Amino acid sequence: MTKQHIYLNGRILLQEDAAISPLDIGLLRGYAVFDLLRTVNGRPFLLAEHLQRLRSSADKLGLAVSASDDEIAAVIDELLELNGHEEAAVRLVLTGGVSPDGLSFDPATPTFFILTHELHIPPASLYENGGALLTEKHKRELPGAKTTGYLTMLLNRDKTAEAGAMDLLYHDGEHVFEAASASVYFVRDGRIYAPADCVLWGTVGSLVLELAADEYEVVVGEIALADALAADEVFLTSTTRGVVPIVRLDDAPVGDGQPGPVTRDLMARWSDALARA
Amino acid sequence: MTKQHIYLNGRILLQEDAAISPLDIGLLRGYAVFDLLRTVNGRPFLLAEHLQRLRSSADKLGLAVSASDDEIAAVIDELLELNGHEEAAVRLVLTGGVSPDGLSFDPATPTFFILTHELHIPPASLYENGGALLTEKHKRELPGAKTTGYLTMLLNRDKTAEAGAMDLLYHDGEHVFEAASASVYFVRDGRIYAPADCVLWGTVGSLVLELAADEYEVVVGEIALADALAADEVFLTSTTRGVVPIVRLDDAPVGDGQPGPVTRDLMARWSDALARA
Repeated sequence: MTKQHIYLNGRILLQEDAAISPLDIGLLRGYAVFDLLRTVNGRPFLLAEHLQRLRSSADKLGLAVSASDDEIAAVIDELLELNGHEEAAVRLVLTGGVSPDGLSFDPATPTFFILTHELHIPPASLYENGGALLTEKHKRELPGAKTTGYLTMLLNRDKTAEAGAMDLLYHDGEHVFEAASASVYFVRDGRIYAPADCVLWGTVGSLVLELAADEYEVVVGEIALADALAADEVFLTSTTRGVVPIVRLDDAPVGDGQPGPVTRDLMARWSDALARA
Repeated sequence: MTKQHIYLNGRILLQEDAAISPLDIGLLRGYAVFDLLRTVNGRPFLLAEHLQRLRSSADKLGLAVSASDDEIAAVIDELLELNGHEEAAVRLVLTGGVSPDGLSFDPATPTFFILTHELHIPPASLYENGGALLTEKHKRELPGAKTTGYLTMLLNRDKTAEAGAMDLLYHDGEHVFEAASASVYFVRDGRIYAPADCVLWGTVGSLVLELAADEYEVVVGEIALADALAADEVFLTSTTRGVVPIVRLDDAPVGDGQPGPVTRDLMARWSDALARA
């Protein structure tokens, strides 16, 4: 494999030479946000939206991204050129920076790095047959920000895999929120229901809802867990996975257990949007 | 200041040369635990208890500390010798290690490092006059483990400081748990009440309860928030702060707003224990 490069605090260097301080508050106290975008035909996709979300996440932690959009775009271009992926996932991470005492830090000197992975797209069978979610009572600590706190998701990774599920569906026992690593939407009587509270704004999800708006009524608001479990269709959206039909929640089929007509229509609209990118 | 040294994955090196990979799952996903101990007269205090707790935290994440107790004790001795503190706080951090894709990792290759800070002991006035806590509705994601997730504490640091408070008191609206960085105990009618659920086992707190056992009845269990707010006395325990009287919860005084007799007795017992160390 090509030696991988990374951007770290203003410099591009070999990934193996990139050093994060053990005193970084992102490591010692989980004080960090990130964003993840993908390329389409080798070009960053929805870059402006992802950078806007990264800045919004940073703002919620009292941090600021230490580079302009143009600088970041140029860095990503250079990394993509150097790292030689077919299609890439691009990860941008911002922490509060180095903490001398493991507690205090200076927001004026954050740690900011950008790295790329090869993009792993799920198999076609997932889109044809649909996937499953496991419900899990959990609310992320600061749901409006894309923080690095994924403990609950990782602690449940074996249980999730053993159940043949692709992700967790977070709820508080009364309302549903989001999947651990994706947005989730519910379809009932031809309407699309989008959870509004305790969710991260989804870049793909927002675009899918826009693509749906001429045909479907979209209802944004609180969604009762019971209503979610009784939905005709469920689908998730994510940067790396696009639109995925969810045909099982825990042990129960969604609708007739097959990808439904609204989901299939939105998958087609999403494919068209990707093809036009 | 003396150049500071650190232990990282089997080696002792200069802190400025210590490199954590940007792909560390502790940084990218908050998958990490730690422990913090202090020295007394330059010697590690309650070392066995802290190492036991670190191993317990690690176990809850499916990780294992990659050094024996004897090896760790020897490393700490060497760091204390090299780093030259008057009294030190010793931080041990264990993560899931390097993740090639920002999601998967191999528990067999964790990242383990140990660093030391100068120990900052609070001013005598805190023990004479007592401190304040701000109540905050929050439960840590995995309360039984000392994970690196301190987002809520850090997000509230300005509010806490402005209120003249020293820490947050976590609760769920019905029961109290713990402070963000300390154990908390409540005294009523001469009995000591220790929250049992959703709390981290406290090394200092456990020893204080042992020291108290010949004189006081200790009740370990669920503690209603309302009862906590109506306590005669409140005190917290922590590694770096010992036993601290809490005389204010939010805007309301605890009891008569002065450190109470039980707390003062336990502070004296704790001082004796430190003097014997």
